Amino acid sequence: MKELTVQDIEAIEIGAAILGTGGGGNPYYGKLEVLEQLRQGRRIRLMSMEELPDDALVVSIGEIGAPAVSVEKINEGEELKRVVEILERETGRKVDAIISVEIGGANGIKPMTAAAQLDLPVVDGDGMGRAFPEMQMTTFSMYGHCSMPAAMSDCHGNNVVFQKLKDEYWLENLARTTVVEMGGSAAMAEAPMKGSFVKKYAIPGTVSQALRLGKAVMEANEAKRNPIDVIMNSENGVMLFKGKIVDLERRMRSGFTVGQLTLQGLSEYQGEEANIDIQNENLVFRMNGKTMVSVPDLIVVLNIDTGHAITTDVLRYGQKVAVVGIPCHPLLCTPRALEVVGPAAFGYPEIEYRPLIDQG
Amino acid sequence: MKELTVQDIEAIEIGAAILGTGGGGNPYYGKLEVLEQLRQGRRIRLMSMEELPDDALVVSIGEIGAPAVSVEKINEGEELKRVVEILERETGRKVDAIISVEIGGANGIKPMTAAAQLDLPVVDGDGMGRAFPEMQMTTFSMYGHCSMPAAMSDCHGNNVVFQKLKDEYWLENLARTTVVEMGGSAAMAEAPMKGSFVKKYAIPGTVSQALRLGKAVMEANEAKRNPIDVIMNSENGVMLFKGKIVDLERRMRSGFTVGQLTLQGLSEYQGEEANIDIQNENLVFRMNGKTMVSVPDLIVVLNIDTGHAITTDVLRYGQKVAVVGIPCHPLLCTPRALEVVGPAAFGYPEIEYRPLIDQG
Repeated sequence: MKELTVQDIEAIEIGAAILGTGGGGNPYYGKLEVLEQLRQGRRIRLMSMEELPDDALVVSIGEIGAPAVSVEKINEGEELKRVVEILERETGRKVDAIISVEIGGANGIKPMTAAAQLDLPVVDGDGMGRAFPEMQMTTFSMYGHCSMPAAMSDCHGNNVVFQKLKDEYWLENLARTTVVEMGGSAAMAEAPMKGSFVKKYAIPGTVSQALRLGKAVMEANEAKRNPIDVIMNSENGVMLFKGKIVDLERRMRSGFTVGQLTLQGLSEYQGEEANIDIQNENLVFRMNGKTMVSVPDLIVVLNIDTGHAITTDVLRYGQKVAVVGIPCHPLLCTPRALEVVGPAAFGYPEIEYRPLIDQG
Repeated sequence: MKELTVQDIEAIEIGAAILGTGGGGNPYYGKLEVLEQLRQGRRIRLMSMEELPDDALVVSIGEIGAPAVSVEKINEGEELKRVVEILERETGRKVDAIISVEIGGANGIKPMTAAAQLDLPVVDGDGMGRAFPEMQMTTFSMYGHCSMPAAMSDCHGNNVVFQKLKDEYWLENLARTTVVEMGGSAAMAEAPMKGSFVKKYAIPGTVSQALRLGKAVMEANEAKRNPIDVIMNSENGVMLFKGKIVDLERRMRSGFTVGQLTLQGLSEYQGEEANIDIQNENLVFRMNGKTMVSVPDLIVVLNIDTGHAITTDVLRYGQKVAVVGIPCHPLLCTPRALEVVGPAAFGYPEIEYRPLIDQG
């Protein structure tokens, strides 16, 4: 088990934002919360998949809501701890470890706060290998785990338990409608999983991946090397576009940040135009109107100079960005997974998923 | 303890609809469900306030949703039983008796189904003495009972627990938003109360009242006497208007049936016009534009010939009706109660509540 340092957390912030493909919430506040835990003398222990006992009870946690809200509506600080404790009471069993529902964005880092407060290890992995906007989109749900009982808590200490629901989509619908009523952000924990299940179906090693990626970007910036190249090399990434944001439509709809980004090409992309469709995360990348990359592959918008990810809530007119595609984990592109996170699941029945990895 | 008969249930249906002041859901389906319980050999025992032990645990139950939905979306049949059982699990304590959240409409009768299924007595009283559209509007909440944990269940067996919430208004908001997502109707149970509290703050004797009222209407109809007069005599009622429905605006808004009814005067009211504002229940009665009666007093719309109540979901153009005012129970017009169920609480800050009983 590895104990994470302040420097590790700083790196994970950068890496988690990149893996968030624009969503999962801006990890900056999450980082501040976690650093405060370290300052208070608590520990954050990262547990590898190999170290996780088969019979351990693992709870996946994260925040639910719209990224655009979560940067303005600050946490009370113990929401994520509370939802784990509620589940322990509901199930009558002690939890052994925490895992992030999604490594991307704030949810790649925020669960560490609860882990520190509860003195539980954080499993090196997550349920998405990126960020997705809806709750049924975890590999845990896709591969058969039932999320109920699931617990929800907001900054006022309003605690709601979804004790038994018909399926994972009902959880998404009821939790979403509840979080909207709660003001747009809240903590959630889903029913405990056995270690053996997590080992098989979590996206493995993603906390280390975020850490490695963040460190690489930091080192590249210090050494004045091109951080975009470093990211692409580290993650088998593909350069999709370089351009300036010339149009940005972004609004709240049913608790989501939705919209579209338009880019005008720069340097070798001069004269070209690209678009990205957003639902919390970047969903579809088009160049001159033609779909090039789609979910579940990762579409990452980076500051062209620093290589830092630009989450959808801080996109601004005039920003110069590089758009990089990163192939998703194989667990996300099985037929079973594509039913839940393929283009059709996001309202694009006309788009056939073409794996980035096959596009050379 | 009195065991209720088929004839009693038939009478309570009529009486509960009258006390529902248009809302609480049409009791017809509720009656069918309860009669089915009797047919299966189960019992419905009515417990008087005097018989209720001080240390008994009493759970208030009812359905939440829009009346207009509840006549189309039929229950699965064990929703109300389930919410009681969920609360027993949550609190780790057995419930001793059931009480209706509101005597008015379907909720005056439906809780008997759960009582029969669980073989628990029904307390002769309720939390409103009529029907109201929102959950914080019970005398239980007004006089200090905390409704959490509260349980909710729909026809699919989706079970949600509001374990701890900031206040009763949060319960109304979160439960309302959840019931909308559930399709517009669901069962609810609120945290158990002690018998001593119920004796002090429930509106007493309202099941007997509905029974008596229903029997009186049935007997009047059989004897060809005027049932409207019988109702007024039985409940200290005041004749407000006789007229024909000439305009009816009714729509769904955030899970409520809202709208306005316009009446053209008949017989001694020829040439006059009256309006009734609706939010699930009849809220405000105006004659020729002047407010005459408002919540919390009861505004009852009756079929002018039969004396049967016309709930807001079955109002139709052309119906001939009598509008009767009935004074509310004193527990509903204390300053504390008026804050929650006075005209201002329903969006009428300009209307000062003038008790019907003073208008003689």
